[in-house]
Amino acid sequence: MSMQTLQQRILKDGLVLSDRILKVDSFLNHQVDPPLIDDIGKDIALRFRNRGITKILTLEASGIHIAYATALHLGVPFVYGKKKKATTQSGEVFTSSVYSHTREETYLITVSKAFLSPDDCVLIVDDILAEGAGAGGLVEIVRDAGARLVGVSVVIEKSFQNGRRQLDDSKIPVYSLVRIARMSTTTGVEFIDESNQ
Amino acid sequence: MSMQTLQQRILKDGLVLSDRILKVDSFLNHQVDPPLIDDIGKDIALRFRNRGITKILTLEASGIHIAYATALHLGVPFVYGKKKKATTQSGEVFTSSVYSHTREETYLITVSKAFLSPDDCVLIVDDILAEGAGAGGLVEIVRDAGARLVGVSVVIEKSFQNGRRQLDDSKIPVYSLVRIARMSTTTGVEFIDESNQ
Repeated sequence: MSMQTLQQRILKDGLVLSDRILKVDSFLNHQVDPPLIDDIGKDIALRFRNRGITKILTLEASGIHIAYATALHLGVPFVYGKKKKATTQSGEVFTSSVYSHTREETYLITVSKAFLSPDDCVLIVDDILAEGAGAGGLVEIVRDAGARLVGVSVVIEKSFQNGRRQLDDSKIPVYSLVRIARMSTTTGVEFIDESNQ
Repeated sequence: MSMQTLQQRILKDGLVLSDRILKVDSFLNHQVDPPLIDDIGKDIALRFRNRGITKILTLEASGIHIAYATALHLGVPFVYGKKKKATTQSGEVFTSSVYSHTREETYLITVSKAFLSPDDCVLIVDDILAEGAGAGGLVEIVRDAGARLVGVSVVIEKSFQNGRRQLDDSKIPVYSLVRIARMSTTTGVEFIDESNQ
């Protein structure tokens, strides 16, 4: 899949609700187009092949299908961090407290200690990188586990928000399939050209 | 994939915490084994092929990868019902109120009206069928949408709980890859033999 295909899909089916909110729930994070996600997983897997990755880590719910497709193509398992501890999740867990700008609430990410160890080499994936709260919480969990972090990969990066900058500041490699420079309800979505990256 | 493969995986990696709680979070609903899920999706797709299905419907979070794999093999999109309305989910939604026995709380399932219509022919999928609360909520949403419901398919059915009985009473076809007759911490998991179904 070319970056152009995904950009065109965003222009065609994405809905700019404000200069910060892009609705892509007709193909990415409510209704989902499986062949598109399969291509995305293939693309991320290709970018991170031969890096010794042992596990993909994501966050429920909208990262799960991205993580699944990536993990299937890399031939490794994936783990999804849970928001808030359920009663069936016994045993020890890694936790990280995260503020969601979308839901305007703080939640706890939990990952069972059984599924991340110092032997793991981890790629974090998610659907959208905005303020970076979710990705930051997952990074903290990978570090708590003593695992090696290879990088963070997302489908859509809203480059004008703080997530990308924070990951860059922490020297964490980021691979975003498309990067949005800015957007508005009047002018639409403006991408960062790959050749300028 | 044979039903036996999945039964053996449950016996090997599943953990019976009580006579009602089976922990399968090392391969199904926290850490996930992608080739196993791909086989599960293939199996469900094969069972429901040529039924005119236009959409797979599931519930976040643990149904997402099952729905994805099934939808990919059937060549249709999937939609995951969201638990509680997020601020980016504008527009009209179908809703259903559900009590989670696992989390011991009531939540609202929402599905955007844009993604389910009377023209749709829907298969509901999920990871586990226990008391049937999640499946029941999704059935209600399919009916509210005026869509046709083909059936419900789950990976693991705990046949001793009420979900299966309720769906049978409503004349909704159910396809469960494995059915658990009973279980306990001392005697383990006892399956319903497929030949007895």
